[in-house]
Amino acid sequence: MEITLKRETLSSTLQNINSVVDKSSSKPILSNFVIRTLDNESSNVEFSSTDYELSLVELISAEIKDQGSVCVNAKKVFDIVKELQDEDVHIRSTEQLWIYITCGSSELRLPSVEVGLYPQTVLETLPESMTISVEDLKRCIDMTLFAAITNESRRNLMGVCLSSTSDKKTRWLSTDGHRLAQILKPVDKLSFSEDNEVIIPRKALTEVRRAADLFGKTVKVTFDSRVMQFSGGQISFKTRLIEGKFPNCDPIIPKDNNMEIVVNRESFINSLRIVSSISSEKLRPVKLMISPGVLRLESEKADYGEVVDEIEANYQGEAFQIGFNSKYLLDVLGVIESDDVILECKNSMSPTIIKSSVDESFLSVIMPLRVEW
Amino acid sequence: MEITLKRETLSSTLQNINSVVDKSSSKPILSNFVIRTLDNESSNVEFSSTDYELSLVELISAEIKDQGSVCVNAKKVFDIVKELQDEDVHIRSTEQLWIYITCGSSELRLPSVEVGLYPQTVLETLPESMTISVEDLKRCIDMTLFAAITNESRRNLMGVCLSSTSDKKTRWLSTDGHRLAQILKPVDKLSFSEDNEVIIPRKALTEVRRAADLFGKTVKVTFDSRVMQFSGGQISFKTRLIEGKFPNCDPIIPKDNNMEIVVNRESFINSLRIVSSISSEKLRPVKLMISPGVLRLESEKADYGEVVDEIEANYQGEAFQIGFNSKYLLDVLGVIESDDVILECKNSMSPTIIKSSVDESFLSVIMPLRVEW
Repeated sequence: MEITLKRETLSSTLQNINSVVDKSSSKPILSNFVIRTLDNESSNVEFSSTDYELSLVELISAEIKDQGSVCVNAKKVFDIVKELQDEDVHIRSTEQLWIYITCGSSELRLPSVEVGLYPQTVLETLPESMTISVEDLKRCIDMTLFAAITNESRRNLMGVCLSSTSDKKTRWLSTDGHRLAQILKPVDKLSFSEDNEVIIPRKALTEVRRAADLFGKTVKVTFDSRVMQFSGGQISFKTRLIEGKFPNCDPIIPKDNNMEIVVNRESFINSLRIVSSISSEKLRPVKLMISPGVLRLESEKADYGEVVDEIEANYQGEAFQIGFNSKYLLDVLGVIESDDVILECKNSMSPTIIKSSVDESFLSVIMPLRVEW
Repeated sequence: MEITLKRETLSSTLQNINSVVDKSSSKPILSNFVIRTLDNESSNVEFSSTDYELSLVELISAEIKDQGSVCVNAKKVFDIVKELQDEDVHIRSTEQLWIYITCGSSELRLPSVEVGLYPQTVLETLPESMTISVEDLKRCIDMTLFAAITNESRRNLMGVCLSSTSDKKTRWLSTDGHRLAQILKPVDKLSFSEDNEVIIPRKALTEVRRAADLFGKTVKVTFDSRVMQFSGGQISFKTRLIEGKFPNCDPIIPKDNNMEIVVNRESFINSLRIVSSISSEKLRPVKLMISPGVLRLESEKADYGEVVDEIEANYQGEAFQIGFNSKYLLDVLGVIESDDVILECKNSMSPTIIKSSVDESFLSVIMPLRVEW
């Protein structure tokens, strides 16, 4: 193989490639990636990497002198290419499996691996599909991924559950057992059987989100019960889906929360930061004392001190108080975009809804915390 | 004590205070700092913190309602104050050792410690002194601190040695045994006996450098054989000096290096980055192959590959080669400011001088590395 590419394009592609590559080094072959010229007359070359779960395929335009393919260490190539200065990068492989990368006066020689040893990513034609704008996809990921579980304790919660509603919207749903987040989004060309649902893993959504702007304006999502593909522009991700059943969250979403508190989102964030900053715990409990016109926030009364703050609140009911992990509140307030947010409560023990004051498509539910101070 | 201060001033002062505070938590009392109103009619209050080795005293203007002093946890106060939003911060202490900090609608209550338990920092009148411009002081620190040792293996090298030359300049000198850096700088009002020298610890220089712009235009440095004080503007640092003898580095600075290579500093940095990026070792050995007009850089020939690069060099002598840890070269090239740098070599085994092409006051010496490839 012998090709010449623009250094800048190569460098940004390698960054995507490298973030998919398996960092655990438990399977050395997965520290590599593949460059392959296409069989047809295309002037594109294909870059691909995989960690078995998630794969990335990206096409970049190149001057192709000699067809072929190479498989080489992703981190080494990325670390060096990002330091290069000249405009063009020339890549050549030899039969002895050496790769020569030259750029200006710099020359790099690296050993490579038989391409046949590397798991090849094949993009498939899959039965279910939809087309979603990149902006909507980014928003659906941002509004749900924060509430998915991060540790391995419950594999089926380590991602976002995608299903479709009876009125042909997509439903994106995540939960870690203490909170949930849900967004409903209409999409184009939805072909998705109503009683079906799939769980998209966290890593796939993180990488798709990071690279989202490379898709262009829209993303075509295709899937079956095993795998899902995101394609747009010159880039495609393919991920295995999480096996298992996502819990039925409908009973957890309260229907009869009759106390509504409206507060300015930014003031609420500031107050939560102030009040939670004294706690050294990770989740930082906070007590909200709600009375007509006023939301008062109190930290725990601990040996090392306490903080209280107050903000204006639009609320007319009886005074009551409720506790939360402030991290959970801050997470959801951080993704809502409206000026005001609404808290819908029932009592100090029942799940509370937090949502935007203007956008009905999103809601988050947080379990309260028993506050004993 | 009862005072009111500007939040922004308080916040930046607390940042300085907090970076001096002992983080090791081996001595709990040192996690605190002290606020003290001054006995005279001054409208300044004094903030101070110490880790026994290094102390900081900073005056900030405040509205003083009630004289007094408090000693309180630095990190807690800093973490909360940086989240506050309003303009003024009000601090009040009670006889029961509680501190109330209020700002807008936020109120913080913290336990405090008897001020008498905290080691008090007393600024002294010391026999030796000089006045140095802030810009010169920053430069003297930047040009030497990088070469001081970072681990505890040799305590006398964990800082920068300050002495004076026969022509009344200050000499700043550091070494870690593999390289040294030296800068000579004329200063005002130098009172420093010629046969004397002191070793200023790394942490003191790091903190003085970080806060340097707060000194104003000049810094007054006073010292004896035990302690050194840096004062300017409203801020003073006092540090213990490192006990012990600094090694005599004069014999290491070569006098008869007769091969001079001039290269563009930026090109040299780029090439070193490219060539060293393949190595996973911390110090990243590199071989320089010098011949008339050309400097060629080669990485080790390792199993995982190799990189070579070339840059223009102004050199007329015989071809030869010499190895270095590229980190040492990059460190010194990073602090030199001129377009070109000069390498003065003798042979592949002798210490090499690296210096600016225009500024004679600075030089660095690096021990070469035996290269076996």
